[in-house]
Amino acid sequence: MKAEIITIGDEILIGQIVDTNSAWMGQQLQKLGIPIVQITSISDQAQAITKSLSEASKRAEIILVTGGLGPTKDDITKHTAAAYFQTTLRTDEEVLAHVTNFFTSRGRPMLPINEKQAEVLANAEVLFNDQGTAPGMWVTQEGIHYIFMPGVPFEMKFLMEQRVIPKLKALKGVQAIWHENLLIAGLGESFLAAEIEDIENSLPTHIKLAYLPTLNLVRLRLSAMGESLENIQAETRSYAELLAARLAAHVIDRQDRSLPAVIIQHFTENGLTLSTCESCTGGSLAAQFTAIPGASKMFIGGTIPYSNRLKELLADVPASTLNLYGAVSEQTVRAMANGTKNKLSCDYALATSGIAGPDGGTAEKPVGTIWIAVAGKYETLSKCLHLKNDRSTNIARTQLEVLFLLWNLYIKELSNPRIEDI
Amino acid sequence: MKAEIITIGDEILIGQIVDTNSAWMGQQLQKLGIPIVQITSISDQAQAITKSLSEASKRAEIILVTGGLGPTKDDITKHTAAAYFQTTLRTDEEVLAHVTNFFTSRGRPMLPINEKQAEVLANAEVLFNDQGTAPGMWVTQEGIHYIFMPGVPFEMKFLMEQRVIPKLKALKGVQAIWHENLLIAGLGESFLAAEIEDIENSLPTHIKLAYLPTLNLVRLRLSAMGESLENIQAETRSYAELLAARLAAHVIDRQDRSLPAVIIQHFTENGLTLSTCESCTGGSLAAQFTAIPGASKMFIGGTIPYSNRLKELLADVPASTLNLYGAVSEQTVRAMANGTKNKLSCDYALATSGIAGPDGGTAEKPVGTIWIAVAGKYETLSKCLHLKNDRSTNIARTQLEVLFLLWNLYIKELSNPRIEDI
Repeated sequence: MKAEIITIGDEILIGQIVDTNSAWMGQQLQKLGIPIVQITSISDQAQAITKSLSEASKRAEIILVTGGLGPTKDDITKHTAAAYFQTTLRTDEEVLAHVTNFFTSRGRPMLPINEKQAEVLANAEVLFNDQGTAPGMWVTQEGIHYIFMPGVPFEMKFLMEQRVIPKLKALKGVQAIWHENLLIAGLGESFLAAEIEDIENSLPTHIKLAYLPTLNLVRLRLSAMGESLENIQAETRSYAELLAARLAAHVIDRQDRSLPAVIIQHFTENGLTLSTCESCTGGSLAAQFTAIPGASKMFIGGTIPYSNRLKELLADVPASTLNLYGAVSEQTVRAMANGTKNKLSCDYALATSGIAGPDGGTAEKPVGTIWIAVAGKYETLSKCLHLKNDRSTNIARTQLEVLFLLWNLYIKELSNPRIEDI
Repeated sequence: MKAEIITIGDEILIGQIVDTNSAWMGQQLQKLGIPIVQITSISDQAQAITKSLSEASKRAEIILVTGGLGPTKDDITKHTAAAYFQTTLRTDEEVLAHVTNFFTSRGRPMLPINEKQAEVLANAEVLFNDQGTAPGMWVTQEGIHYIFMPGVPFEMKFLMEQRVIPKLKALKGVQAIWHENLLIAGLGESFLAAEIEDIENSLPTHIKLAYLPTLNLVRLRLSAMGESLENIQAETRSYAELLAARLAAHVIDRQDRSLPAVIIQHFTENGLTLSTCESCTGGSLAAQFTAIPGASKMFIGGTIPYSNRLKELLADVPASTLNLYGAVSEQTVRAMANGTKNKLSCDYALATSGIAGPDGGTAEKPVGTIWIAVAGKYETLSKCLHLKNDRSTNIARTQLEVLFLLWNLYIKELSNPRIEDI
C-alpha cells in the first residue's frame, strides 16, 4: 500500500511559504512503513485538484490532501471533492456545535460563513478537529483512501496524530519498510562510493543505497521494502554493519538525525556543556540546538552580540582587539569563543563573526568573509570561510562549518585527553 | 507560458529534508511573471522520472528539474533523461577541465567516477556550474524547455541566477503576472471576508483573491495574469487600494514580507533599537530578525539564557525572583525583558520563558505553558500562552505571539508618545 501527498494552495507554488507539511507527513508515513510515491503541490483551482486526485488514485492507495478547507472563497477543496466523488455536502451537527463553541468561548461573534465549516462531504467519515474549525475528512472509494486535512500546520499535525495515523495503522496491506542510516565524515561522495563499491554492487534489488551529501558530511541511507519487517530489518542491518566496518571511524552516527542531535547526545553522555556566541549567524545555531528535546542537558545558553558594544559587554572581547583587527577577524572571533567559555563557565563555546551579505563588504573583507571559532577544554580552533552565496545560504553554510569544527575538536579532545583527565 | 518544478530524491519524499528549493524557484518564476502549475516531488526511479517529465510536458512549457545529477549510483537523472529524449550522453571537454581543476585545486585526487560528472545530454546546452562539479543542462524539444540542475541548494541557486533566469527572460510568450499583498491584523479570516465581501464579488475573473491566515494575522493576496503588465498592475493596485481603504488601520503592511521585516523597517525609520532575551525560543526569534538584510540597523543583539544561572548573569534577573516564582513565570519573563532592555541599552526588548516540551512539565505548569514579555519605551506587556502542540510548533507559535505583542506595543507607543517625546 503506497501513499501520495497533495498540497493545495497558490502560496506554495509561488514560494510564499515553504511546504514543511509534506516533509512532516512524509516522516510519519515512513515510520508507518508506507512508501510515498509522490508529493504534488497544486493551485486552488478545481481542474488542478480534480486531475491530481484522479492521477494520484492511479499511483497510490492512500492520498493525503491538505489545504483549501477554510471558510473563504478561495477555499474550494470541499466543493471540488464533492464533485469528484459525485456526492454532496452535509452539515455535521457535532462539528457545528464545536465551531459555535469555538467562537462563543473566545467571546467572538459567529458569522454565517463560519457555519460552512461544519459542512462535510456526505460520503466522508469526519475527523474531528479539536484545534481549529475545519474538520478533517476520510473518504474510502474503490479501495482508495482519500484523507482531507486543513493546511494550517498545527491543525494538520493534530489530525494526523490523533485521527489519521491510528486509522492508517489498522489498514491491511501495508508493506514493511526499513531504513538504516550512516553519517559519514571526512570522505567525499566519490571517494566514499569507491570505498564501498563492492558492497553496493552486492546489494539485492529490493535494498536501495542513497548518498545524501551536505558540506563535509555524507549520509548513507539503506532502504528496503518487503513483506516481513523482521526480515528486511535483519537484512538491511547486516549490510549497514558491513558498511560501518569498512568505513570505521568515518562513521560518526548510525541514526537519522542531525549533527546537533549527535552532539547533544555525546555531550550529555560525557557531562560536557556548550554555549554559543553568534554574530553573523544571529542565534540560528543556538536555535538548531534548542529545537531538539533534551538540549538543556548540555546547552547552557549563549549570546548574540550583533553590535561591537555587545561583543565587549556579553563576550568580554577587549575593545583593543575590536579596534585593532575589526569585528570580522581571527583575533575577535577567538576572543568571542574564549570570552564566552570563561564568562558563561562551560566546556565548549562556539563563535561566529562575518559579513553574510548582501551589504557590508569591503575590498579587504568582501561579503562572505566569515570567521568561526570553537573554544574547547584545552584549545581553540578557528577558520576563515570565503563564501560566495546569498545571505541565507552563507548563514546556513557557516552553521555546517561551525558544527563540523565543534565535532572535530570534541573528537580530538576526547581521544587525546590531558593528563589530569585520566 | 507556464512552468512546473520537479524535484527528484527519496530524501524529500520521506521527509529527511524539507524541499526549500521549490519554494525558492517558485519565487524566482513568480518574479519573472511565469505562473507555476505544479510542484512534483518523486523518487530516484527511472519510471517515476520518465512519467513526471511526460506529464509535466502536457501542463507546462518550462520544466525545472533538480536532483539526481551526482556521481553515485543512485543518481540516475541523466541516463533516464537521455532515454526520455532518445539521445545519448557525451563528455563535455570544458566541464571535464573544470571538474579536474575542482579536484586538483583542492589538492584532492580525482576518481574515474568524477569524470562522469562531465557527461552531459547530447541534445543539451550546458549550463556551466562554477560552484560544483555537476553542470546544469537545458534541453528544448517540441517547444518544451527542460532545465536540469543539481539539488544542492547553493549550486541550484547559482545556476538559476547566472544561467537559467537570463535565458527565461529572453523566451517569448511569457504572460505577465502581478500580485498585491495586504497584511491584516486584528480581524479573523471570516470577519475579514464579511467585511470585504462586496469588493471580492466585484473582482473580474482574471484577478484572484487569496486569504493566507497565520496566528493573529491574515495576508490577503490579489493575483492577476494578462497580456500587459502595466494594465494588470494598475488594475490589481486599484482593487488593493479599495481593500486598504475599507480595512484602514487593520492593514499593517502592503508588501510580501514577514512581520520581522515590517518591524525592521519601522524601527529603522524611527531610530528605535531592539534586543532579545530568549529562553524557550532558544535564539530562533533573533535568527528570524538577523536572517533579513539590514537587521543590524535596529537589532543590537541579544541573549539566550537557557539556564537559570544565565538568566541572572545575562539578563540581571534577581535570584530571589527565580527562587520565588520559578523560571516560567510572569515575574521572571518581565524581569528578563526589563533587565535586557536596561543592561543592553535599547528601546525595546522581548523575552520568552516556557516549557516547549515534550518533557519538563509539571501539574501546575504543564508542557506548553509559556510566558512572553515585551519591554517598550514606557511600559512592559506580558502574556501567558497555553499551547498544546509539539515542541517545534509550540516554539513557532510563541514566535508569532511575541512578534505580534512587540508590534502592538510599538504601535501603541507610537500613537501615544509620552509628553517628553513630542
